[in-house]
Amino acid sequence: MTPVPDAGWYRDLRPSPADERLRERAALVVPGGMHGHKSASRLPRGYPQFFSGGEGPHVVDVAGRRYVDLMCSWGPVVLGHAHREVDVAVTAQLAAGDCLDGPSPVMVELAELLVDTVTHAQWAMFAKNGSDVMTLAVQVARAATGRRVVVVAEGSYHGNGAWCSAPGTPGVLPEERAHVVRIAYNDAESLSAAVEVHGDDLAAVVLTPIRHDVRRNLEPADPVFVRRARELCDARGAVLVLDEVRTGLRADPRGSWEALGVRPDLSGWSKAIGNGHPIATLLGVEALTGAASAVHATGSFWLSSAPMAAALVTIRIAREPDVRAAVDAVGARLQSGLREQAHGYGLDVVVSGPPAMPFLTFDRDTDFEVARHWAAACLQRGVYLHPTHNWFLGLAHTAEVVDAALTATEQAFAVVRRALDVGDLQLIAAAG
Amino acid sequence: MTPVPDAGWYRDLRPSPADERLRERAALVVPGGMHGHKSASRLPRGYPQFFSGGEGPHVVDVAGRRYVDLMCSWGPVVLGHAHREVDVAVTAQLAAGDCLDGPSPVMVELAELLVDTVTHAQWAMFAKNGSDVMTLAVQVARAATGRRVVVVAEGSYHGNGAWCSAPGTPGVLPEERAHVVRIAYNDAESLSAAVEVHGDDLAAVVLTPIRHDVRRNLEPADPVFVRRARELCDARGAVLVLDEVRTGLRADPRGSWEALGVRPDLSGWSKAIGNGHPIATLLGVEALTGAASAVHATGSFWLSSAPMAAALVTIRIAREPDVRAAVDAVGARLQSGLREQAHGYGLDVVVSGPPAMPFLTFDRDTDFEVARHWAAACLQRGVYLHPTHNWFLGLAHTAEVVDAALTATEQAFAVVRRALDVGDLQLIAAAG
Repeated sequence: MTPVPDAGWYRDLRPSPADERLRERAALVVPGGMHGHKSASRLPRGYPQFFSGGEGPHVVDVAGRRYVDLMCSWGPVVLGHAHREVDVAVTAQLAAGDCLDGPSPVMVELAELLVDTVTHAQWAMFAKNGSDVMTLAVQVARAATGRRVVVVAEGSYHGNGAWCSAPGTPGVLPEERAHVVRIAYNDAESLSAAVEVHGDDLAAVVLTPIRHDVRRNLEPADPVFVRRARELCDARGAVLVLDEVRTGLRADPRGSWEALGVRPDLSGWSKAIGNGHPIATLLGVEALTGAASAVHATGSFWLSSAPMAAALVTIRIAREPDVRAAVDAVGARLQSGLREQAHGYGLDVVVSGPPAMPFLTFDRDTDFEVARHWAAACLQRGVYLHPTHNWFLGLAHTAEVVDAALTATEQAFAVVRRALDVGDLQLIAAAG
Repeated sequence: MTPVPDAGWYRDLRPSPADERLRERAALVVPGGMHGHKSASRLPRGYPQFFSGGEGPHVVDVAGRRYVDLMCSWGPVVLGHAHREVDVAVTAQLAAGDCLDGPSPVMVELAELLVDTVTHAQWAMFAKNGSDVMTLAVQVARAATGRRVVVVAEGSYHGNGAWCSAPGTPGVLPEERAHVVRIAYNDAESLSAAVEVHGDDLAAVVLTPIRHDVRRNLEPADPVFVRRARELCDARGAVLVLDEVRTGLRADPRGSWEALGVRPDLSGWSKAIGNGHPIATLLGVEALTGAASAVHATGSFWLSSAPMAAALVTIRIAREPDVRAAVDAVGARLQSGLREQAHGYGLDVVVSGPPAMPFLTFDRDTDFEVARHWAAACLQRGVYLHPTHNWFLGLAHTAEVVDAALTATEQAFAVVRRALDVGDLQLIAAAG
């Protein structure tokens, strides 16, 4: 067992020499050394920026250090890294033909599989990223209705499109967010009020299946809220759009609202559906076929075949009920283990999220200083997770893997307990 | 030699039974049966929608018919289909790790190679599609200048972003195109006038290196126009953006304006840089590093390693001067061959574009009826090209391949000659 370090240990954390050298080179040729959500700059010191590989539930950094990966590449990897069946399918499709003058038959097979899997879906369109398909969803809704207003929940991330950008995003004009109206998630009254005000111009209501904003506990959708959204859209002739980009293949593969008996008109999927291979899909109902045909939906690689071959394999495996039950079981094992451990150390935590999308926050930890301290301690013990963003599990996380992770998390709780006891935690933000 | 068919032959053209069956299945699960620029619906009847593979300069449809591919997957394939070195690099990188919790060292190598290759580039950011990086370019320019107006040329395609969409695009609001001002390509006075009107609010001028709108002859940039753009941007403190998405690795790899002695501040590249693997990059000058770090640049697969490995190989090969000279030579051979053939049949054509991006139009063929007739005749003879969009050549198009293509194009000119002689061409549009 790794000994609990002295308080203040985290100030000495630094990336490995191999990682440092790559960071120095990157700083010369990449703005800020790295862009986007995979920048390590917002993580505690010591987190690696560069990775050399992955296998199953593990990811390996450029220093050769192996971690239990609780981020799954921020969602895309659901069957495990370097999954054999997926990689065989991809390699075979690459050899046969990937980016050609038109699609391959695999596109039709995949569209058929999606329509067969997701209950509301009667058609599929393909793109590369979640942002692509969520933006297409808004365009289809506006084209279908001839209206402008799109209602979204505050704090809900629907991609990098200008329409859903946060106010103040550098380089985005307020005009590009025109007619996007924000409501509070799970607040049916807020939704009703927005629809009342904009009813005649309401094109769409766009929602995530659960509340999964960064830096908050995850929150399941209130059935009253979801049903109200469906009713209001039906009453107003507006389009109900479900953003399954993050939940896809980690919640109900038939659609995340299936247990609530509610079906959207459009849903956007990406991330996990190709087990890390770049693909996204917009699924829709028959009534929106005309609008979907009319929008400008095109990209150089949107019809490439290899990621479609990956998605065929991934979805066929991940949609099986026994597979989902297994992931739910290990997810529950992790969540209850974390709760018990924290309780044992007298730490107040909230473990939230569906089994395959867990997250942990510490009580009164508004600046996430404790979470950063704890995450760094987990990392040092071979578990890669995130202090401010929900994590992801997948099929490769067996009970043994979760138990190994729990060994590390328990030691990390001990580290946090000791640091709190000696009053050292206020220094973390400065050292981070 | 394939005999010249009777006039009216093209009305009997139809896709192969294998293609028809896939179209029927696709029609049930994909809006309109297909979306985007690879939809065969805008091509003459008989064009295949679905492909099963490609090798070198050839593409194979689902009926097993092999064509000399003069579209190169609409640009992405520049070394040839299923290029061995690229595929070996991709397969190795897939095995090592593709989509991980952060980038792999290959990202740094690729950024370094890009900075070494493209003269104006001092940094690189990565994304998936041309649209991603052209939209990022506009955001970086707006973030850097704190201004709003972006000047673009009429008819120039810069991607599927709302900001550069054509007025009337279904589902896009006029507000999303706010502060985008259109000028005439190669018209320095039009550019000056626009800058004069919007000068204090000018964020960027965005240009393609050549005029390559659909349904027109391609037109090289007027050096006066390009230099004026540079001068005006310098005088006004605005950002000059070059859209190399279509020209990248088919014109000067140092930057398409290098021969003019003009360098942009930002350039967007995609399509060919990964030989068909999905990758795009925004390149920029040092002064824009801060703005580039500030914009929201993120996508689930933007830092994936396998396409970066493909790009490393592709750029290293394609940037070699002797390789470029070889492509230029076969491109010139095709263009002069086409001109001579058309002349021999008394057909007035314009063959335009750089050697690796040829295009052919028939004089007075405003509805492209003659071009469609000719393209269909080429297709029947084993050459896949496009009647209304520029074509693409690459390293796999040897002199022998071009000569084989020219055998087919000559017969196609004979077909057109005969149809024109019997006055049958007006029926093409109805049959198309």
